[in-house]
Amino acid sequence: MINADEINQLKAILDKERVSAGESVRELHSHDESYHMHMPPDIVVWPHTTEEVSRLVEWAYEKHIPVTPWGAGTSLEGNPIPVKGGMLINFQEMDKIIAIRQQDFQVDLQAGVIYKEMNKILGHHGLFFPPDPGAAATIGGMIGNNASGIRTVKYGATKDYVMRLTVVLPGGRIIHTGNRARKSSSGYNLVSLFVGSEGTLGFITEATLGLIGLPVNFMAVRATFHSVLNATDTVFQIMNSGLSPAAMEFLDEKVIKALNKDHNLSLEEMPTLLMEFHGFSGDGLREEMALVEEICRENKLLSIDKGIGQTERSRLWEMRHLTFESIKRSHPGLLPLIMDVAVPLSCYSEMAGYAKEQTKDLLAYVFGHAGDGNIHAVVLDNPHDKDRWSRVEEANRKIVYKALEFGGTCTGEHGVGIGKRAFLPQEHGEALELMKTIKQSIDPEGLMNPGKFFL
Amino acid sequence: MINADEINQLKAILDKERVSAGESVRELHSHDESYHMHMPPDIVVWPHTTEEVSRLVEWAYEKHIPVTPWGAGTSLEGNPIPVKGGMLINFQEMDKIIAIRQQDFQVDLQAGVIYKEMNKILGHHGLFFPPDPGAAATIGGMIGNNASGIRTVKYGATKDYVMRLTVVLPGGRIIHTGNRARKSSSGYNLVSLFVGSEGTLGFITEATLGLIGLPVNFMAVRATFHSVLNATDTVFQIMNSGLSPAAMEFLDEKVIKALNKDHNLSLEEMPTLLMEFHGFSGDGLREEMALVEEICRENKLLSIDKGIGQTERSRLWEMRHLTFESIKRSHPGLLPLIMDVAVPLSCYSEMAGYAKEQTKDLLAYVFGHAGDGNIHAVVLDNPHDKDRWSRVEEANRKIVYKALEFGGTCTGEHGVGIGKRAFLPQEHGEALELMKTIKQSIDPEGLMNPGKFFL
Repeated sequence: MINADEINQLKAILDKERVSAGESVRELHSHDESYHMHMPPDIVVWPHTTEEVSRLVEWAYEKHIPVTPWGAGTSLEGNPIPVKGGMLINFQEMDKIIAIRQQDFQVDLQAGVIYKEMNKILGHHGLFFPPDPGAAATIGGMIGNNASGIRTVKYGATKDYVMRLTVVLPGGRIIHTGNRARKSSSGYNLVSLFVGSEGTLGFITEATLGLIGLPVNFMAVRATFHSVLNATDTVFQIMNSGLSPAAMEFLDEKVIKALNKDHNLSLEEMPTLLMEFHGFSGDGLREEMALVEEICRENKLLSIDKGIGQTERSRLWEMRHLTFESIKRSHPGLLPLIMDVAVPLSCYSEMAGYAKEQTKDLLAYVFGHAGDGNIHAVVLDNPHDKDRWSRVEEANRKIVYKALEFGGTCTGEHGVGIGKRAFLPQEHGEALELMKTIKQSIDPEGLMNPGKFFL
Repeated sequence: MINADEINQLKAILDKERVSAGESVRELHSHDESYHMHMPPDIVVWPHTTEEVSRLVEWAYEKHIPVTPWGAGTSLEGNPIPVKGGMLINFQEMDKIIAIRQQDFQVDLQAGVIYKEMNKILGHHGLFFPPDPGAAATIGGMIGNNASGIRTVKYGATKDYVMRLTVVLPGGRIIHTGNRARKSSSGYNLVSLFVGSEGTLGFITEATLGLIGLPVNFMAVRATFHSVLNATDTVFQIMNSGLSPAAMEFLDEKVIKALNKDHNLSLEEMPTLLMEFHGFSGDGLREEMALVEEICRENKLLSIDKGIGQTERSRLWEMRHLTFESIKRSHPGLLPLIMDVAVPLSCYSEMAGYAKEQTKDLLAYVFGHAGDGNIHAVVLDNPHDKDRWSRVEEANRKIVYKALEFGGTCTGEHGVGIGKRAFLPQEHGEALELMKTIKQSIDPEGLMNPGKFFL
């Protein structure tokens, strides 16, 4: 526990309003959006600058107090839960966009900026940051988890957009790494090492992100199929056809049912694909549309709803982004375990079939960023009912091991946090030892977001 | 020096034909294609498998003998020169394509495969690996340097295509890192740490590369301009127009002159852009062409030569790939220092002008992958004439410092090797200390490609 003296020391580093050990504040920071354990920090602090973060981390290191970074608390594997108590650094007040460098398609910002709010502002400049996890995440959290989402199939994950980082290392040292050029071969790629490291090697306080120009033309398609297999085979064939979808989402019939119920829609309750295409030329997109439709028809298409333009597109994605909320609302009182495996595309149909099969006796919804080979099965149950929950966890384990058999990964986009630690030895083998060597060399005291990654 | 006993030990690890301390063999491996120092290894070995590499590295580590990896010797910063002697591992006999996974757009291969030969084979399957440095490099060398080239502006650098690696660590331990899914958030990104590490953390023996489908349609454009500024302004405007060129190359008038002379061509000897566009739809490409031409005309276009199709495209790129050879052949007896800075695109015109100005009294050719903000100034002179060569090096220093002032990098694609070590403190500041910490933790004896990266 942090004592009164120590609290006063922190209040001398920040203003006293930006340090709190109040019970409700601690409770608010004891859990993310997952079913994982609740564990409150001893104290929560809200720095405004990199220098303040540096002083806080230096202080914690001197006192051997664990430090955990917190973005928006929207993560799904317990990534920011302060499992060893100590100090929690909430980055939400580090929310400044420092500069929009329109000519270079770059933005400089603090780690606490919410990506959705940033994209609204960037849109006025004709720019956007493509990775789109749906939740109201901070950029710092997205970098920490290497977040991705519905646009990743064409545009890549967060890692593909991080150009420069300011990082506070264990002990408080500040480094700047990366540069503003579109490419570089200069030294070890520390930027990529910090992306996805979930704060275990240092805390990201500022970033420069690469951006892209808003697409000139859009095309959106919703297609329904007789079976899951018809839908997933369509995914594979479209991805192999020379087309480059900007989104390629799979939703099973149960997900559609939950969306209909929650939003009073009347979508056909069958396995569904949502697709988007971006292009310079409207005529070019129409050519692509013809091929998309042909491939769908070869796979027992039931119905297709297609259109070119921004309105159609927005309606489609609003629905997709509501999926997780709609599912949760359908089952008040239950908590979700969200699976997040990714596999090579040639195994996607088999993986989706396996996920459906393993969860068929559970309250389960299967969907995913199909074009990336990413699949989510959301299973709802009561974690306090040990017998029932162990069945949920067993399904998760089987699905992860199947994904690893296919040469895939235990987490496509949610990160390791608490929930995936047990799978890293199987996925990485001897390479996990090298990860530990790196962790040990950078954070020898093991104080930065402790209890994550390594069991 | 390695003694006779030790040579016999190595011949027991490999066949005796795959171990050589012969003078001509050592001399052949004493330099790359740069002007840097010649230093022969004590012994050269040609392993065939990861296990053999592991045994060789284990042996060297036990005896505290430096080990340097060698791909094709085409690098430009002294990256594979065995500056501390010892053992040189030549990967050219590890040249097997292990599997082409056509359905997943992936290839598994050994590190010694030559990328051009690989792309010929992949072409039969409708696939290609986009990074294209021009030289007959090995995949292992390209991964080591994070090589890129004329297609990087659209498709990215080598780092964007490496999915899995087999690496022999210092001491001989073998790890497999990465997976076959299109995305992952599972643990530290060791793949990205090894890409561009030039063998200083371990030797890459096998890789899985992501591939893309061959484009359906091509468009190629050669445009000449009144001035370098007109050409470079055109680059910036096209890159900001919503178009996505698959290549965007700048060549100054001296380069064109050298190409004309060497290949008996009659190209207009003025600042030139070579561009390529890829698309699904031919009509779509024609729409893009109209915008390209409009932007060129706004920047005092002199002449434009454009076409759609494979033949036109091949002719264009053959010429570009011959650039470096044509320049060298124009000046027998002189050696080239090749600058390789990259800057944000908004600074490209100023950077190109600065490079022209700083090299105007030297025998210099300025060109580059303009769409990436990458610029090469090739200066030819005699490194043994200290006075003259110090002027060449001074120009290089000034150009690097200007690029760093612009927020760029000292090396866009050639790597650090020997030639860029002196610039890393300026470019990375405190982050260089973290790179040293990582090097120290993984290769505490400092035996893996010693004398590179760190001064």
